[in-house]
Amino acid sequence: MTVLGIIAEYNPFHNGHMHHIKQSQELLKPDYTVVVMSGHFTQRGEAAIVDKWERTEMALRNGIDLVIELPAAYSSQTAELFAYGGIQLLNHTGVVTHVSFGSEVGELEPLSMVARVLADEPVQFKSLLRKYLEQGLSFPQARYRAITEYFSGCGWSNLAEAQWAKVIGSSNSILALEYLKTLYRTKSNIQPLTIPRVGPAYSSADINGRISSATAIRNELVNRMRWDTIARTMPPSSFEILKSAILSGKGPVTNRSLEQLLLGLVRRAPSQEIKDWMDVDEGLENRIKECAQRATNLDEFLMLTKTKRYVYTRIQRILIHGLLGLNKGKIEFFRNAGGPQYIRILGFSKKAIPLLKQLKQSARVPIITKAAQYNKKLESPIAREMFMIDVLATNLYCLGIPGDKYKKGNRDFTERIRII
Amino acid sequence: MTVLGIIAEYNPFHNGHMHHIKQSQELLKPDYTVVVMSGHFTQRGEAAIVDKWERTEMALRNGIDLVIELPAAYSSQTAELFAYGGIQLLNHTGVVTHVSFGSEVGELEPLSMVARVLADEPVQFKSLLRKYLEQGLSFPQARYRAITEYFSGCGWSNLAEAQWAKVIGSSNSILALEYLKTLYRTKSNIQPLTIPRVGPAYSSADINGRISSATAIRNELVNRMRWDTIARTMPPSSFEILKSAILSGKGPVTNRSLEQLLLGLVRRAPSQEIKDWMDVDEGLENRIKECAQRATNLDEFLMLTKTKRYVYTRIQRILIHGLLGLNKGKIEFFRNAGGPQYIRILGFSKKAIPLLKQLKQSARVPIITKAAQYNKKLESPIAREMFMIDVLATNLYCLGIPGDKYKKGNRDFTERIRII
Repeated sequence: MTVLGIIAEYNPFHNGHMHHIKQSQELLKPDYTVVVMSGHFTQRGEAAIVDKWERTEMALRNGIDLVIELPAAYSSQTAELFAYGGIQLLNHTGVVTHVSFGSEVGELEPLSMVARVLADEPVQFKSLLRKYLEQGLSFPQARYRAITEYFSGCGWSNLAEAQWAKVIGSSNSILALEYLKTLYRTKSNIQPLTIPRVGPAYSSADINGRISSATAIRNELVNRMRWDTIARTMPPSSFEILKSAILSGKGPVTNRSLEQLLLGLVRRAPSQEIKDWMDVDEGLENRIKECAQRATNLDEFLMLTKTKRYVYTRIQRILIHGLLGLNKGKIEFFRNAGGPQYIRILGFSKKAIPLLKQLKQSARVPIITKAAQYNKKLESPIAREMFMIDVLATNLYCLGIPGDKYKKGNRDFTERIRII
Repeated sequence: MTVLGIIAEYNPFHNGHMHHIKQSQELLKPDYTVVVMSGHFTQRGEAAIVDKWERTEMALRNGIDLVIELPAAYSSQTAELFAYGGIQLLNHTGVVTHVSFGSEVGELEPLSMVARVLADEPVQFKSLLRKYLEQGLSFPQARYRAITEYFSGCGWSNLAEAQWAKVIGSSNSILALEYLKTLYRTKSNIQPLTIPRVGPAYSSADINGRISSATAIRNELVNRMRWDTIARTMPPSSFEILKSAILSGKGPVTNRSLEQLLLGLVRRAPSQEIKDWMDVDEGLENRIKECAQRATNLDEFLMLTKTKRYVYTRIQRILIHGLLGLNKGKIEFFRNAGGPQYIRILGFSKKAIPLLKQLKQSARVPIITKAAQYNKKLESPIAREMFMIDVLATNLYCLGIPGDKYKKGNRDFTERIRII
């Protein structure tokens, strides 16, 4: 049985995602395609534009057979932890044979080579990385410099600057490298493949083509909401789900929708507490605290707080960590336990029933199809704790939904699993 | 020097307040009139309709010479703690000679008599109180029953039922009794006087007369905003301050304005933490937690949570305690330290300069006129802690102000003291 795995956010599901699925399926001819998808908070540290059940339906109607939720403890993390959570979840299924991800470079070999260095961390590479971090560069920037210098030092440098940028300088490739690194480190049996990305860059604001970035689509939804423009960028079924969700008051949700909660959180938390939130370096807690008082809204807070080193998305992620109580100790604890502790199924296609049967046999962690059973299904306290963070993420996310009736809490326990 | 003290909220300052000040001043002919005023959160557990600086101006333009802030640790508390904070603050000034409060009964004698019983807690009274509490009555209800029964048992019962209701059954008299109780317990030299209340009851919704309750005025501001109707109920200068504050986006602020923060707070806090918030009885934390998930908005949450015993205002106060981190231990700690630890002056009239000179000589606790000096002025950690709660109260309150520019934090350090 060939099972293709994908790690994604589908925020929202657009033509670029469709392209990636189709290309991967053409290459691999899998029996099933499984996605590990972020729940209510994404890798950029943002509330998802519509809830995870709507996004599950989008996926199921466009070639995905099974949607597994990436726990909130992993979904709003650096590329490294996000990838670790996603790959480990695929590993834990015991059924996924391949994983496909997009990359700018579109070939596996240079990515794999770099990923090895990132995983093994040879001394020379580490000292280069430290040097650039000490110079005040952000982590991705420092790593970029260290890698290029490391390979030139090894006498291996047949890639042009432009190629290097594709291998390690773009958002997608950074994730691709982290996927490969985790596969290597976890001695995974899952085979990687990469599909060249098409269309504009990850965070491009351009929405005029058939393929636009999810960022551009979200901006359009929040600012101008030209449905015809958006329709061009998404498969029809995905567009219909999105449009009807938004017209019924289920979205659009952004961090701005949670502004009072997020600013209140930071104004209320003592510096000592903020210091303990994941990703907060020594001293950053004071900057966060001070900027939260100076700012009159969330955008202003983010603009005031960010620096060359502490980039915008990092500050956003820190807010989500604070919101969900993701402190350093807890994340470390989860990592030592091997990452995701359960397979929470958000939805599946009827075609996938044999796959589910196989999954029950092979999975290394409990499978949750009904949230209400979590107490019975999850025996370890650590798994329960991780699951309760997902529940909390939903309960807080829902306060940002425009339509009042969707603000109700505990929707993890009342929303049905999606089956198409 | 005769100095009249008043404890009030002026939320907003209306004709009833004016009447109270005038009557008291006619009776006493004081040299100065001082008010201890709630800051941003009031005794009903609500965000004040406009900020404390606007309300200070209202007071100063209508017969008050000096406005002292009641620390947030005391302003959103039961009548007992609120009164304790207010009276102790007057005691701490060392200059206030009299305190005047409204009451339905309008005479001091029956109030004093009951206050003695409440302060001394004779065994028979205590057992009656316990009995009614065990029957599930709210504290005010149980106390009402216990008092009437206690006095009838003593053979002293020349007050008709309607009179009893006036002495202990109304909101104002409950506060009056607590003021007297604290004066008695703290062996205060301050002489009490009481002025009969005029106009509709404390929380009456009727706004058609010249004297309306503050509740009715706030409702009008939030719901219909008929300026002419509101104008009738307030002294002209107070009305102008209120109207211009609201038209410039400084209000109206209500708990609804902080809905996301308050609901998010309760959804986010573990039951174990809620259990520790001031006024949360054993088991109530679970009810609060559960209702916060079921509710889609704040009103719904309050309606779901309240019971005969846990009345609406108590639940509101609990939310404010949670918001400001007022847990049981902290309140106990403050009480053991003798209540308010500083005299924070929000404003004064130029006429009051000799009074301020005298205050500097006589005050038993540090005087704060510039918040930025708190670190220098407040030597004890407990005083600093109490002050930081006031600062936090402002920082969170401001997130509920409609106009974006007033959402800025740390306004305690930037707003000037009001002098007229």
